[in-house]
Amino acid sequence: MIERVAILGTGLLGTSVGLALRSAGFRGSIIGWNRSPEQAQVALSMGAFDSIAKDALQAARNSQVVLLAVPIYVTLDLMEQLSGMLGSEHLVTDVGSTKAQITAAAGRLFNTPERAAFLPGHPMAGKERGGAARGDADLFRGTVWLFTDDPTWSRSPHSAALVKEWRGWVVAMGSRTIDLDSARHDELVAWVSHLPQFTATALSALLEEEVGDAPELKDVGGRGLREMTRLGASPWSMWRDIAHTNTEAVENALLALEQRLAHIRENLRTPQLRDEFEKANRFRRE
Amino acid sequence: MIERVAILGTGLLGTSVGLALRSAGFRGSIIGWNRSPEQAQVALSMGAFDSIAKDALQAARNSQVVLLAVPIYVTLDLMEQLSGMLGSEHLVTDVGSTKAQITAAAGRLFNTPERAAFLPGHPMAGKERGGAARGDADLFRGTVWLFTDDPTWSRSPHSAALVKEWRGWVVAMGSRTIDLDSARHDELVAWVSHLPQFTATALSALLEEEVGDAPELKDVGGRGLREMTRLGASPWSMWRDIAHTNTEAVENALLALEQRLAHIRENLRTPQLRDEFEKANRFRRE
Repeated sequence: MIERVAILGTGLLGTSVGLALRSAGFRGSIIGWNRSPEQAQVALSMGAFDSIAKDALQAARNSQVVLLAVPIYVTLDLMEQLSGMLGSEHLVTDVGSTKAQITAAAGRLFNTPERAAFLPGHPMAGKERGGAARGDADLFRGTVWLFTDDPTWSRSPHSAALVKEWRGWVVAMGSRTIDLDSARHDELVAWVSHLPQFTATALSALLEEEVGDAPELKDVGGRGLREMTRLGASPWSMWRDIAHTNTEAVENALLALEQRLAHIRENLRTPQLRDEFEKANRFRRE
Repeated sequence: MIERVAILGTGLLGTSVGLALRSAGFRGSIIGWNRSPEQAQVALSMGAFDSIAKDALQAARNSQVVLLAVPIYVTLDLMEQLSGMLGSEHLVTDVGSTKAQITAAAGRLFNTPERAAFLPGHPMAGKERGGAARGDADLFRGTVWLFTDDPTWSRSPHSAALVKEWRGWVVAMGSRTIDLDSARHDELVAWVSHLPQFTATALSALLEEEVGDAPELKDVGGRGLREMTRLGASPWSMWRDIAHTNTEAVENALLALEQRLAHIRENLRTPQLRDEFEKANRFRRE
């Protein structure tokens, strides 16, 4: 049924979805739009899109499925603009990393029998550096794609069918889907995604001050250091919106880690250190 | 000149050195010893050793080069026992992760013209789980092997030649060698090795409490979470001695990271967050 997809935002995720859809056998049209025409051309040259639209809203109107692959606050802006323009023949979905605000807006602006469906989504995939040129048809293979759909929403049979078919394409791109409540989503990702990111940022920034002037000494840390700081390359431009829209949960997680580190620091010579290692070992049991 | 090597300790590092020496073309004898005869048999079956010794001290006496590949406090014990038994025809070296105490003992117990040479060493290589069965001839390829030799030590020409030849084998095993002062070594590894380890332990232990009862949710974190917690599998038995022998430097590093995390937590909605990301980006610049 889905024959026309518009992807608004041709960065790493948008470009990768275009490539992955093709790779999964999608034969309809895929049109891309990007605020920066240069980035859109890169995505086009990689084969992720059939064509590039000049106008985001026009591209959305002409499609059945609209994927918003832009930062969170841009997603919220576009949701406001698209809501009145689209109808029950459309499905809008997104890739935003926090879901409480987007899911609330989806309930307010979409998901009635007359309006377009909005399926809030979050592929747990990415790279520490973004951009169309790093787009990858296999980016979603073996990963989890979260949805924070609300079962109380009532959609037209047509848009409900679009939702079902889109979920099938997500699986075809290689992801396992998990559905959860948007508040639970934001709390969970604060622990398993946002906390690791801010920890890598803190560790990398600290080490830049301590050993950054001696590049040869960075090699001393080997694989462990490389892995623990890889996410340090992640750009602020992406994480700013996450920090703004999931502040409380991230604050709680950071404070808990600070306390845990202090506990280890105060027990380097006591048996409590063994308890911490054993608890950590359990998290990594095979 | 080196024709007989004894490796005391046939865990991951000792076994890997045996395999790597062979792979690099060493044609002399390699004898192994381990406190646990079962682990020694595993190492023997992997081809890392020509034979297994029943008595560590006897094996050392019959060799030219003795590699101590045991925990730090066992290394210090063996240094006391070997000092009086060996002479200027011997070289003893080690793989201990902290070097201040071992280097001080090396100056007190070895490294006169009459005594054996002791070359304090630290290969920056390993895996998060140890044991002979994980031994790997390529473990040292592309890694750094640190030495904290003291230029004021006076060795016999014979043992000085052994030191030089052993350094050549370390390079032949694939490592780049860096020489530094033992105090500077311990401060440096507190930042680039011990801090990442204790951070991974703290993060893993915290996440075991928060999401450990929902294994399917661990997958949500993807590659970033896997990398940030891989070292959480490291055993306390190895890190206990490190925590005991580099306590102050590790305390300083942990406190600095706690403060950095608090700074990020207090600035999730301010431009200071951008400064932290930019500093972290500089550490990971390509």
